[in-house]
Order: sequence, then structure tokens, then C-alpha cells
Amino acid sequence: MNEFDLIRLLTRGLTTNSHVRVGPGDDCAVIDLGVPNRHFLLKTDAVVEGVHFTADTPPEQIGHKALARNLSDVAAMGGRPIAALITLALPETFQPSFVASIYAGIDALARRYETAIVGGETTTNPGRILLSLTVLGSVPSDRCILRRGATPGNALFVTGQLGGSLAGHHLTFEPRLAEAEWLATHFHPTAMIDLSDGLAGDLRHLLRDDALGADILETAIPISPAARIRAREGLNPKPALLAALTDGEDFELLFTVPARSSVALLDAWKERFPKTRLSCIGKIRKEPGLVLRSNRGSREINDHGYVHFT
Amino acid sequence: MNEFDLIRLLTRGLTTNSHVRVGPGDDCAVIDLGVPNRHFLLKTDAVVEGVHFTADTPPEQIGHKALARNLSDVAAMGGRPIAALITLALPETFQPSFVASIYAGIDALARRYETAIVGGETTTNPGRILLSLTVLGSVPSDRCILRRGATPGNALFVTGQLGGSLAGHHLTFEPRLAEAEWLATHFHPTAMIDLSDGLAGDLRHLLRDDALGADILETAIPISPAARIRAREGLNPKPALLAALTDGEDFELLFTVPARSSVALLDAWKERFPKTRLSCIGKIRKEPGLVLRSNRGSREINDHGYVHFT
Repeated sequence: MNEFDLIRLLTRGLTTNSHVRVGPGDDCAVIDLGVPNRHFLLKTDAVVEGVHFTADTPPEQIGHKALARNLSDVAAMGGRPIAALITLALPETFQPSFVASIYAGIDALARRYETAIVGGETTTNPGRILLSLTVLGSVPSDRCILRRGATPGNALFVTGQLGGSLAGHHLTFEPRLAEAEWLATHFHPTAMIDLSDGLAGDLRHLLRDDALGADILETAIPISPAARIRAREGLNPKPALLAALTDGEDFELLFTVPARSSVALLDAWKERFPKTRLSCIGKIRKEPGLVLRSNRGSREINDHGYVHFT
Repeated sequence: MNEFDLIRLLTRGLTTNSHVRVGPGDDCAVIDLGVPNRHFLLKTDAVVEGVHFTADTPPEQIGHKALARNLSDVAAMGGRPIAALITLALPETFQPSFVASIYAGIDALARRYETAIVGGETTTNPGRILLSLTVLGSVPSDRCILRRGATPGNALFVTGQLGGSLAGHHLTFEPRLAEAEWLATHFHPTAMIDLSDGLAGDLRHLLRDDALGADILETAIPISPAARIRAREGLNPKPALLAALTDGEDFELLFTVPARSSVALLDAWKERFPKTRLSCIGKIRKEPGLVLRSNRGSREINDHGYVHFT
């Protein structure tokens, strides 16, 4: 049983109440607290030594990554963060200065997005550091973007460049809060997600349990220089294209808009975010499955992101 | 450097914003989200295998304890829970049925308090299970009870019985949500905290960094049968009284009210919660320090909860 299957099993039929607009299964939960025209977002996410960072990762980057992952989920709903809570689980022996630097990394990022740190707990976790963060955010209720909502014919866009995140991006990336809020305000994507598990895997979350499919144009995939270098130098056994499709931790936005908005969106984006690439990489289709098209033919991408020729 | 010192150091000067009424340092953070006459509460807390439970703790109790600790903090503010988020960190090999039972333990408790489970993340933590939960709650803004607020002469009360929690109470306790909300509504405590680290230690949090002190009546301390049995049978090296003062994880409410309300409170409590003990154990005084009084004389309790004769 993999993580996705387990979560799906566990979160089926859990207690809910009248405040809940969206429960488990989207980038954030969406809660109605009685504020007119506004919904609130809740997200929790953890990073673990040996899994999401290593023993020699600079502590500021550990803190940065832990908060940035949560903020990226708030971005994926079109929202803004309000407050964050930190639970820090530490081995029995630790350097207070190391822990202070983790906090400094969190706080520097929080400050840029006016996110209050309202709780800091510590506990013991023998053997490794674990940081569990929770973020509360908000979004105008008519601009809250869910994962579901894409329809056949919608154009599929991705921000930035994909693959090779392990070379460093995963520790230093800036959550796409400004871009997502702008998108939600001006182009209201029909569906959006942040890429944490790789394009091929995360795209499926926009396809409503394979009720829909997508056509991807191979030449349109924005492969990152890091993915190319790692493939060329043998640091990653995958070819660069496959790395861009399946490497995790890109933390870019993947979203859909009606096809008729595509050109206007690309023009407006270039004006507003001239330094950040935005790529139209394909479209949503009625038939289930992810198909990668090139001038050499079509290949299907399977659940685990691997490509086999058809 | 101990945990309290570390948290105090780390949470000094962190980013805040205009939503924050109370940041780190109380049982919950208190947030203003623009709802008239209502504040929102945020709390995060983790339980770790080998620290808060053992490898042979029934999984339902692990889940129960993880949520109950957070709900106890919401109770300590006089609030009600709305929603909870779960981050479950698991060893690489686990039994899905074991994990499902952890969730069942969380959900059964959540259901009793109409608390929606709105997020369930899993991650890897080689070697041990760690459960980090976050709760969002709310409280009428004029009934939100902080740790600070006690004044000299206030009577000091504690619910239930203290000590010996390791015998089982720490895994099965019911958070005092009903009692706390009733107290906040009818007697508005001047200060309140839930007992997680032992009476002698947690009482200091009501004394505003030792600006105040407290007189405790030794005979008024409600020593639990479990504490007496563990002391008698040598399961705990501490005498039962010391166990009641310093054992952790009681999760009872410790609070102060103006002395003139004491008798009315005791009478109304007996009527409303006939099965739960409420004890007036002493009073707040101007002079710093915790003094334990009995007919044999007075003893001071020091920072770590240990008693030395004076």
C-alpha cells in the first residue's frame, strides 16, 4: 500500500462539520468561519532528516523548506498565509544555535509574506530532526481554486522549470504566492495544484480520479538546466525529460484555464512576471490517461510517472 | 538548556501581524479573523513513540492521546474545537490496519466534540511513529481565558485528581472541554492552564514569570488513587503527594477565580459535574515562590517541582 492509497483509505468517512467546505484531499482544507466572502485555508506538512533534507543541510534552509512547502500549498488555492505553527522534534542532544538557525530560516520567509509565527512547540525524536508546520491562510471565497474543476479542452500551464530539484531548488525555492494570487484574481484557473511529487503524478490529481485525461506536448515541457546537467553528468539515471516529468519537489504551479484565455494569459504573465517562465504544456481531454506527444509519436505515462512506448 | 528556555529563546521576536491577539506562550494562540465577538484558537502538539507512548500502546489510544492533548489546550482557553489536521510520520514498514486504528482513535474523540478532521498527511520517520496534530478552535472573545490574569488573593482550583497518570490516565483521559466552557461562561476564571507538566511546574505559568507566588494547602491536593498505589507498590520512587505535585500528563484544569466566587463555584460545580472533583487548593499571593503549607509547617517547591524543607 503506497502513501496515496493509505491516505485515501484513512481519510474516508472522517468526522466533518458545517464549517468544512473542502476536507482532506486538496492542497489545503477550506473552512468557513462566518466571514462574508472569505474562506480560510488549513494545511499541515512535515520535513524529516534523511528524507527531505540531510544531516549536512544548512539549518536555515531546513526551516525555509519546511515553511515554504506549506506556503506553496496555500498558493495552490490562490490564498494568502496568515499564521504558522511550528512543532520541532529534536534528538536528545542538539545545539541550541542550530535550532535557532532553523527558526531563523522559517522566520525570514514568514516575514516576507507577513505570516505570524503563533506557536512553537518542541518535543523529542531520538535519531533525527522532524519539523511539522501548519499554516492558516485565507482566500476570497469566489477565488478559491480547487484541484477539481478542469474540463476537457482546458489548456494546461506550468510555471518555472521542472526536474533536478535535488540539486538545490528544493531547499531554497520561493513559494509561488504572488503568482498564484495574481492568477486567481485575473484568470481564475479552473483547477490548480503545486507540484510536489512530479508533473506526471500530480497532474493526475487534476483529472478527478482518472475521469479525465491530458495530452502533453513533449517539446513544451520546461526542462530545468539542473535536470539537464544531472542527466548529462550521470547524477540522475533518468533522461532529462523524464526527470522533468517525474522528479519531485519542483513546487511550481500546475493549472488549467479555458483555452480561449491562453493567449491573453501568456501576454499578461510576461508583463507581470518577466523573469518567470510560464509554459502551456498541453490540454485536458475527455479520455483518461496521460499522453506525451512529440513528432516521433505518442507515449503514455503511467501512474508512477514512468514512460513506456505504446 | 531545557525545553522551556529553548522555546522562550526561539519564540522571542518572531514575525507577527495584526491578526494576532496572543502569540506563542499560552495554551493556544489567539487570532482575530474579523468575526465580531469571536476569537480563533490555534494549537499544535506532537506525541512520539518511546516518549509519549510505547511500542505496545494500543493504536486507538495513541490516536486518542494525540488529539486529546490538543483539545485539552483548547479547553484551557475556554474554547471549542472546530477542526483538526493530522501529520502522521511512520517507519518505512507499517501495518495499514495499525495506522487505521490510530485514525479510528482520533476520529472517535473528534466525533464527540464535533471536530472535523480536515487534513491527513503521512510522511516517513525511520525508527518510530510520531503524530503531530493541530487544532483550530474558537471562543467568544470576552470569554477567552489566558494564563496571565491571576491577582493576589485569587483562589486556586484544580479539577479531578493528580499524579500517577502513567498508570493509564495519560492515554485515555477526556479533555475537560465541557467543564472549561462552563467555567468560562459562568465564573470567568482570571487565569487557566491545563496540567501537562505537573502542578508544581505548570502553576508557575500562572504566576507571570514569578511576579507572583502561591500558597498551596497540602491536605487540599487531590491525590489520585493511581499515585497512591504506585507509591505504595514502589512503581514510582516519589511519595504520593510529590507525585501529585510533579507527575506530568494529568490534563486537568488549573485556574484562578476571585476568592469571593469560591463558594458559589464549588456549589454550582457539584450540581453540574457531580462525578468530577473540584478542589480549592490554595491562593495566589504577592510574594514570589510556591509554598506548600500543612499542620507540620511550610515547605517551598522549587522550579523542578521537587520539595525541600525550609
